[in-house]
Amino acid sequence: MAEEKLVKRSEDYSKWYNQVILRTEMADYAPVRGCMVVRPYGWALWENIRSALDQRFKATGHVNAAFPLFIPMSFMEKEKEHVEGFSPELAVVTHGGGQKLEEPLVVRPTSETVIGYMYAKWIKSYRDLPVLINQWANVVRWEMRTRLFLRTMEFFWQEGHTAHATAEEGEEETLRILDVYTDFAVNEAAVPVIPGRKSDTEKFAGAVRSYTIEAMMGDTKALQSGTSHNLGQNFARAFDIQYLDDTNQLQHAWTTSWGLSTRFIGAIIMTHGDDQGLIFPPRLAPIQIVIVPIYRNDEQKATVMPVVQQLGEELSSFRVKIDDRDKVTPGFKYNHWELRGVPLRIEVGPRDVEKNSVMTSRRDQPGKPGKKILPMENLAAQIGELLNEIQASLLERATAFRDDHIHEADDYDSLKEVVQDGWAFSWWCGDAACEAAVKADTRATIRCIPLEQPDGSGKCVYCGKPAEEKVYFAKAY
Amino acid sequence: MAEEKLVKRSEDYSKWYNQVILRTEMADYAPVRGCMVVRPYGWALWENIRSALDQRFKATGHVNAAFPLFIPMSFMEKEKEHVEGFSPELAVVTHGGGQKLEEPLVVRPTSETVIGYMYAKWIKSYRDLPVLINQWANVVRWEMRTRLFLRTMEFFWQEGHTAHATAEEGEEETLRILDVYTDFAVNEAAVPVIPGRKSDTEKFAGAVRSYTIEAMMGDTKALQSGTSHNLGQNFARAFDIQYLDDTNQLQHAWTTSWGLSTRFIGAIIMTHGDDQGLIFPPRLAPIQIVIVPIYRNDEQKATVMPVVQQLGEELSSFRVKIDDRDKVTPGFKYNHWELRGVPLRIEVGPRDVEKNSVMTSRRDQPGKPGKKILPMENLAAQIGELLNEIQASLLERATAFRDDHIHEADDYDSLKEVVQDGWAFSWWCGDAACEAAVKADTRATIRCIPLEQPDGSGKCVYCGKPAEEKVYFAKAY
Repeated sequence: MAEEKLVKRSEDYSKWYNQVILRTEMADYAPVRGCMVVRPYGWALWENIRSALDQRFKATGHVNAAFPLFIPMSFMEKEKEHVEGFSPELAVVTHGGGQKLEEPLVVRPTSETVIGYMYAKWIKSYRDLPVLINQWANVVRWEMRTRLFLRTMEFFWQEGHTAHATAEEGEEETLRILDVYTDFAVNEAAVPVIPGRKSDTEKFAGAVRSYTIEAMMGDTKALQSGTSHNLGQNFARAFDIQYLDDTNQLQHAWTTSWGLSTRFIGAIIMTHGDDQGLIFPPRLAPIQIVIVPIYRNDEQKATVMPVVQQLGEELSSFRVKIDDRDKVTPGFKYNHWELRGVPLRIEVGPRDVEKNSVMTSRRDQPGKPGKKILPMENLAAQIGELLNEIQASLLERATAFRDDHIHEADDYDSLKEVVQDGWAFSWWCGDAACEAAVKADTRATIRCIPLEQPDGSGKCVYCGKPAEEKVYFAKAY
Repeated sequence: MAEEKLVKRSEDYSKWYNQVILRTEMADYAPVRGCMVVRPYGWALWENIRSALDQRFKATGHVNAAFPLFIPMSFMEKEKEHVEGFSPELAVVTHGGGQKLEEPLVVRPTSETVIGYMYAKWIKSYRDLPVLINQWANVVRWEMRTRLFLRTMEFFWQEGHTAHATAEEGEEETLRILDVYTDFAVNEAAVPVIPGRKSDTEKFAGAVRSYTIEAMMGDTKALQSGTSHNLGQNFARAFDIQYLDDTNQLQHAWTTSWGLSTRFIGAIIMTHGDDQGLIFPPRLAPIQIVIVPIYRNDEQKATVMPVVQQLGEELSSFRVKIDDRDKVTPGFKYNHWELRGVPLRIEVGPRDVEKNSVMTSRRDQPGKPGKKILPMENLAAQIGELLNEIQASLLERATAFRDDHIHEADDYDSLKEVVQDGWAFSWWCGDAACEAAVKADTRATIRCIPLEQPDGSGKCVYCGKPAEEKVYFAKAY
């Protein structure tokens, strides 16, 4: 029953990623090409992500709703950039109830259009604003090259859609959500993202300005992990979202949209995982603690098991799993749960019972350094602290790794070298032509123009013209 | 700003139902015919339903996952009865990414087929059983005559799919879930459902036995409110779900499926609502308590508002809304929240502050009988009790209404009369021809063969032949 060893990340990162997902039963391939099944272990992680985000949305005044899966094809065509961006990716329903439809229906790739239509119906006066609605939903984009979690034909996400009375409020909302995403990524997922603005080339189809949180994966590639869009009045004009202001004038509303998807699961896997498998941050881990009883015979079992059961109850405020399987060895269990990224293991053997203590092993520090004997007394509090330490240390390690692989590149030769194995932080003049040239040469794109900018100005890394902003160039998923 | 009065239920029940949903902003019509938008107030109710059910599923050992939206058309055809039942209702994707697909994809109307395919892949040995998975998802059935919540083209539900080693375990699971549904309906929604078996004519396409919880609506029509299906080995054979048993023999698994949908929101509306609007059971109500401050001038406002704020905090373990709108009268607010079914209102005026008490009004007892002055001291506990009383009294009232409208009908003439305005409880011989004849004559169908049966036997209400079971005949949604 021994499981075959994972491929090393240094040997084949992409294979490691797929293996770890399939073997830990986080997800599987669906019969339809490009679709995935999120299995219970993966979905439990998503439920924890969802709940951490949902709390933050509600705390900032948002409410949930559910908009329809099907969108009339004609809706997609109302916003010019939007249709250009999305039409190559659409799944189209042409038949329903045995009949050919008069107008084909699109399976939503995102919901700005249909929500815009509803908002136009609901919003009459400035008193109805702001409208702050989010939905947790599935969307479909016809992708040719798919990867589990990172890019699948159907994926799961939340999409927030808000409408405001002024441009300023729209921009405020867009940035508020960028903050929420950053806070979630850093403090719940221990993924040290960099919040910033997208270049015009990279922005959402139909947006005035797009913001992103960008994360560095274990192979130094960038992953766009959540986006927040200021849509200006583009969709309000396309869908007639108008309101009477307090002077009784008809105005177009200002709208935003923002989303974070099951792709973030990929971010967690590739930020923290190691050659032994997954490592989950304690705050989101489906199982935070696994308890493994150690015994060699029935007598020892009779000594150990009652203590294990009692421990399980004592630690019930955590997400605990007792692995009481009889037919596999403790060593097999260690590997099993290490592969699955459980942050903390507790071993209880006859000697521990005697000494009134337990052995703990941190997943983030394999081997001796991560082992610690803890007295039973006041155990829950000690375990709580230990989980906090693990959470903090994962963030620290990921931040150090990221910072080690970000290099200032002031000239183009340096940039070309840097993006082979990291991100380049360089001045950029703002010209899309420079951005395109870099991409053509190196496959690196502008991941974001970070909100935090150095003082002063410099010269564009590509053309040498004056530049006001520094940006991150990197290869990306 | 006064809202137009609702139509009376006795005048036009169906119009009342639509009006109450649209005016309370629970849902709205989507641009695609037959689809709905569940608005925040409706979705908040669904979130509470979901959480009450999800807890019960998890407590009985189930886990959540997510299976794909798209199903290859050929899958639908593998189980003969299943395809006959569902093919008239399918929405079909024929184009993706700008190309015609080789094989059309069905938007899932239910997921037995695609989950069967995955289970065949995952299940190898008796050690892998049982598999107990649920998903919260949207499904699509092409319906011609739609009603908000009751029958919409896209709807939201949970669908559980389990696989077992023996026929007995499959039947046990099917009945366990029927129990879970009954417990949820009665104790959370105060909807006194009758659990029972479906006749063969009414069972799920592909099931061996279907069970249902049937509820009586305010117009005495029946609503099938949740179903649990024993699928025997039908889907296991169609999809090759096989396992090696403990003697190393290959066996087909035994599977079940069960679902409860946003239709249940319709059940809540039509069980409890009155001519003033919605009445929500406290355990599921999105807002359990609304606090309305009463004042005539700024001085009174300055007296009242701090007490209202403090009350809000004191009652924060409940779902509380403080209606502090300045531009509408208390009377307007009363109507507003009565329409929206908030179970309990608390009024706080200057005199209440003086007397250190509050006025409470129960939504289920409009006018004087439902009013009560409560001292401020220990208010949260008193309010908790009051909400429990409301919950109990809603169940009692709905049960009394149901029992008043169920009549024993021993002969066919009585049955025909009874089903005009109620349910008939009658002996049935088990012959589908009798069932069909009753339906053709009266539009009443067999809603269920209740689990609880009287002793003895009788004569079929239609044909007079010996009958072993009593059933409910009723018109249904």
